[in-house]
Amino acid sequence: MSTRAGIVGYRGYSGAELVRILERHPHVQPVLLEHRERRDAHPHRRPRPQHSLELTPEAVRNHELAIVFLATPPEVSMELAPALLGAGARVVDLSGAFRLGTPETYAAWYPEPHTAPELLAEAVYGLPEFCRDRIPAARLLSNPGCYPTAANLAIRPLLEAGLVDRSAGIVCDAKSGASGAGRKPSLKTSFCEVTENFSAYSVLRHRHVPEVLRLSGLEEAEFSFTAQLLPLDRGILETIYFRTARPASAEDILEVYEQRYASEPFVRLYNPGHLPDLRGVARTNFCDIGVTVDARTGRAVAVSAIDNLVKGAAGQAVQNMNLMLGYPETEGLL
Amino acid sequence: MSTRAGIVGYRGYSGAELVRILERHPHVQPVLLEHRERRDAHPHRRPRPQHSLELTPEAVRNHELAIVFLATPPEVSMELAPALLGAGARVVDLSGAFRLGTPETYAAWYPEPHTAPELLAEAVYGLPEFCRDRIPAARLLSNPGCYPTAANLAIRPLLEAGLVDRSAGIVCDAKSGASGAGRKPSLKTSFCEVTENFSAYSVLRHRHVPEVLRLSGLEEAEFSFTAQLLPLDRGILETIYFRTARPASAEDILEVYEQRYASEPFVRLYNPGHLPDLRGVARTNFCDIGVTVDARTGRAVAVSAIDNLVKGAAGQAVQNMNLMLGYPETEGLL
Amino acid sequence: MSTRAGIVGYRGYSGAELVRILERHPHVQPVLLEHRERRDAHPHRRPRPQHSLELTPEAVRNHELAIVFLATPPEVSMELAPALLGAGARVVDLSGAFRLGTPETYAAWYPEPHTAPELLAEAVYGLPEFCRDRIPAARLLSNPGCYPTAANLAIRPLLEAGLVDRSAGIVCDAKSGASGAGRKPSLKTSFCEVTENFSAYSVLRHRHVPEVLRLSGLEEAEFSFTAQLLPLDRGILETIYFRTARPASAEDILEVYEQRYASEPFVRLYNPGHLPDLRGVARTNFCDIGVTVDARTGRAVAVSAIDNLVKGAAGQAVQNMNLMLGYPETEGLL
Amino acid sequence: MSTRAGIVGYRGYSGAELVRILERHPHVQPVLLEHRERRDAHPHRRPRPQHSLELTPEAVRNHELAIVFLATPPEVSMELAPALLGAGARVVDLSGAFRLGTPETYAAWYPEPHTAPELLAEAVYGLPEFCRDRIPAARLLSNPGCYPTAANLAIRPLLEAGLVDRSAGIVCDAKSGASGAGRKPSLKTSFCEVTENFSAYSVLRHRHVPEVLRLSGLEEAEFSFTAQLLPLDRGILETIYFRTARPASAEDILEVYEQRYASEPFVRLYNPGHLPDLRGVARTNFCDIGVTVDARTGRAVAVSAIDNLVKGAAGQAVQNMNLMLGYPETEGLL
Repeated sequence: MSTRAGIVGYRGYSGAELVRILERHPHVQPVLLEHRERRDAHPHRRPRPQHSLELTPEAVRNHELAIVFLATPPEVSMELAPALLGAGARVVDLSGAFRLGTPETYAAWYPEPHTAPELLAEAVYGLPEFCRDRIPAARLLSNPGCYPTAANLAIRPLLEAGLVDRSAGIVCDAKSGASGAGRKPSLKTSFCEVTENFSAYSVLRHRHVPEVLRLSGLEEAEFSFTAQLLPLDRGILETIYFRTARPASAEDILEVYEQRYASEPFVRLYNPGHLPDLRGVARTNFCDIGVTVDARTGRAVAVSAIDNLVKGAAGQAVQNMNLMLGYPETEGLL
Repeated sequence: MSTRAGIVGYRGYSGAELVRILERHPHVQPVLLEHRERRDAHPHRRPRPQHSLELTPEAVRNHELAIVFLATPPEVSMELAPALLGAGARVVDLSGAFRLGTPETYAAWYPEPHTAPELLAEAVYGLPEFCRDRIPAARLLSNPGCYPTAANLAIRPLLEAGLVDRSAGIVCDAKSGASGAGRKPSLKTSFCEVTENFSAYSVLRHRHVPEVLRLSGLEEAEFSFTAQLLPLDRGILETIYFRTARPASAEDILEVYEQRYASEPFVRLYNPGHLPDLRGVARTNFCDIGVTVDARTGRAVAVSAIDNLVKGAAGQAVQNMNLMLGYPETEGLL
Repeated sequence: MSTRAGIVGYRGYSGAELVRILERHPHVQPVLLEHRERRDAHPHRRPRPQHSLELTPEAVRNHELAIVFLATPPEVSMELAPALLGAGARVVDLSGAFRLGTPETYAAWYPEPHTAPELLAEAVYGLPEFCRDRIPAARLLSNPGCYPTAANLAIRPLLEAGLVDRSAGIVCDAKSGASGAGRKPSLKTSFCEVTENFSAYSVLRHRHVPEVLRLSGLEEAEFSFTAQLLPLDRGILETIYFRTARPASAEDILEVYEQRYASEPFVRLYNPGHLPDLRGVARTNFCDIGVTVDARTGRAVAVSAIDNLVKGAAGQAVQNMNLMLGYPETEGLL
Repeated sequence: MSTRAGIVGYRGYSGAELVRILERHPHVQPVLLEHRERRDAHPHRRPRPQHSLELTPEAVRNHELAIVFLATPPEVSMELAPALLGAGARVVDLSGAFRLGTPETYAAWYPEPHTAPELLAEAVYGLPEFCRDRIPAARLLSNPGCYPTAANLAIRPLLEAGLVDRSAGIVCDAKSGASGAGRKPSLKTSFCEVTENFSAYSVLRHRHVPEVLRLSGLEEAEFSFTAQLLPLDRGILETIYFRTARPASAEDILEVYEQRYASEPFVRLYNPGHLPDLRGVARTNFCDIGVTVDARTGRAVAVSAIDNLVKGAAGQAVQNMNLMLGYPETEGLL
């Protein structure tokens, strides 16, 4: 018998991606949950039947929703998560609401104070490659941000191996497709402003920065991050600059990644001389990583690429759900 | 001494294009006019000085605005045009407010009733290639719509020459870049909805249809028009299907165009075997036209291309202004 | 045990799409076949194991390839098909080589004469919605062209129902993404020529026209077809203009489609007031159809949309393979 | 009387841009020069008359070409420059042939040895903002590369002012539109490979790097540069990371730029809180620069944007020509 999984915010880009993935999942049945919004008229004459319910604690209980995904802004997630947990559902939150550990850190990077601070300690950060142990038992799973997913997967193994000269700092120049800004119309994401354009929209102070610091152990002063808008739909590519702490070749660095990710199903490494691009990861749950090094001077560049809506959001959420519910980790994702 | 020309709606795509064109015009000084909106903070440290005024009758008089462009929605144009004319300015209206001749026709194609019907008889339709005689003396110039400009320039010479079998009707399959939808953010024109997409958004009932009927003399039943959205910024290409009323080659049809447009500076014709594309007209005031014919069966296809913001809006408005003010017609436009 | 299916031309866009689809197919194992080309160095450190063989009759026999897909140009398909059939494989050809019935028709629309005319009579045209009966037993399956797939699915039910006034002809204004031009580099499909551009590249004489005529029974004089290049990767949308032979509403016409396609898994119809777009069919095997009618004048417009690489090529090829091998028709395609 | 300026390589993207700019220049008449290539059939029925000549020393003399632009690959420029100089023309070379000072440096970064090393000492590097003194008398003007133009304009004032902590190095993450790769068709720049994609194509070893080192005085070990391909036509944006050598605010850094560029017509600075984007510089000869600083930690980011075909190639070439011929520096460029 299949598990029923609720989705709040299924009209947004991450939420719609989640529906698409779960519709192919062999063990899960997606249930669309309405929160404050009206139902649209459907253009198709014979629409696929989809279960759509008003989101209430009773609905959660009566329809036996074992798990609910929140593809909602952080302020909505902070409002809904306590009620859903109270109704007995497990929660996978795709927003930034529960990623930062303390209300103080949250307040330092997000515009409003945290309204459910009692859940921060319990929330499990869901980057399976580094936090897999705690995920199966999680009641509240905090799905990582898109930028931190690509950054942490590339950076943390290097730091663990002592390969980075931290005195020189790490630069992470990040580029994202427009779906990362969400589906709400705005001039900044309107077609004529984005096409044939490229711009930096958050320099040094993006709210995803503390997620990288938290997981990697870097200090803010060691990490320079810029978020930029690409004229394309989906994908994040991060170009990461550092100096090696000891002489190392690209092969040496790839060896570090290879050992770290030997049994990871969703991290792919590129041979020296090759680097990932966004086409290679589009509509997949992979994080692709490649490296270039100038051994003479110790300058090194790692490139990390994901689909921001899949490994950066909905795909990783399903990966976490699989771990939470005891399904094979890759189910529905290959 | 240069003429001072006011621009209302200069933040929109057509209005901004108008400012760009007029800034290079040797005889005209653009004056930005504020209507209901606030002034933005300017990002540049040393912004170009630009005259910006509150739009009032006094401002028109005190600053000697000989002409005012309305790059505004029709309901705003209907509100402002009478006041501006009363203050002594001549008006070039880029909206559809004054294009249709009678309040009844307007009401049949636009959502709201006409609020300045007394000006409809006076308004001069500004397609110079067909209406040049009346333009110099116009007090209220109604600048043509983008789709009708491309359509009428391709269709009317064929009808005048009796080349079209009207019993079979004319099909005009029109495609436009997203700037045609204006700058106001909406889901329909947000980047992720438009990129890698193509869609028909108005079939058979677009409000530009009556402009084509009025100028060409076609009946609605003879003219099938579809407006479609291209994933690009600017440009309109119309593929126009008809049957020839008598045997004719592409060369024959081009000869008709050539005679009609022999002295027109902004219509370019393509040799048989070649057809216009949008790159060729981008950021120009040209309308490019080419033709393919199957002489055996009488099926013919004309392709007409313009930049919707230039020949389809701001460029044609300046062309009309040049005629109204006695400047060379091409001034500022080549 | 799974069936082994060979793929020639797997580096092209259609071929690569075929590999992607077959890799998820539960009953089929794709085998990459080398024809004249070298193997590339692979960028991934741990590439997926893929069976890749030199294409020879022995390979076909020794490796028990039950079926071979030819994602090759027509001249290559004409060369390879006889040999593969001789070696005992069944063949699904994605090129235009075997679609036109006679060598004369082929010579009238393709640049070179047909080099395997003896196979034309045997070849089964693989548009399942209209030719399903003959497909299961086909030895040589000719997969339909992308444009004709979208056109025939929209047009033939209307003709069968006598809804079209054929004296006025049918106009099919077709737009395709750049992947339809194949992967071979050329100036016409280079990024800077295609982006922010739109152009008609084949007017009235596209070689897909006879496929529409053959299946629909239209005469060439009744059918005006233009192929145009969209600045996007994948998708075909056709805007089809006709006059109704008798008074009919959009609802009436949709009813005709609905009856015809009641049990078709890959045709979706849109409610009146809605029309398909390319986003809706991207990466799916669906053909989406919608209709607008002006009942007063009998002018009607149908819009038909597919993904040119899926329902227009690789997806339909797999749909045909499923029918040929006795698998459920939708296997691997939903 | 106007100056006659020859253009070799006018079919390429930089060369075509040069023709467009010079056609509007009040004092210069562009003359198209044929080198090895055939003339194309022209699609327009009434093409603009353009002077097109076989490139020979006699042609240079007989047609009194005062100046010749080489919009050609470096190996062609090395072949043509000596002959043109010998025929009495002054030369503006847009390739990398004469930018690096010595044949040794050239050989270290370019694939082939230098074939006109005797001209290297004479060649004047044409970045007017830093080399204006020597430009008027130049016989051979070496027009800067696109990436170095954006980089040097942003970096050198900071170094001159001692604002950069050089021990931490400078990271320059550069992104370019596809026109930077030239017009020759290749898989890497075909539409379907570039659209919806982003990739790094040259990491740490781009041949534009030594131009930055030469002008700025940086050592290779101090400068990490990555060139990446944007899915758009034109524009370069460079995100430049450094640490300040002393406490400084964005305002402090902008003040340095403002002093340095007070009288420069083609450098525009952005107010704190604003950063340049590619739309702002498209089809202009401007270089736009903005800065963000985290004063607590000394991390700083400068963003520099140009149109690669204008300030990065043809526009700067005309700026240099204006200086060489004694015309106002901005003629034809505003």
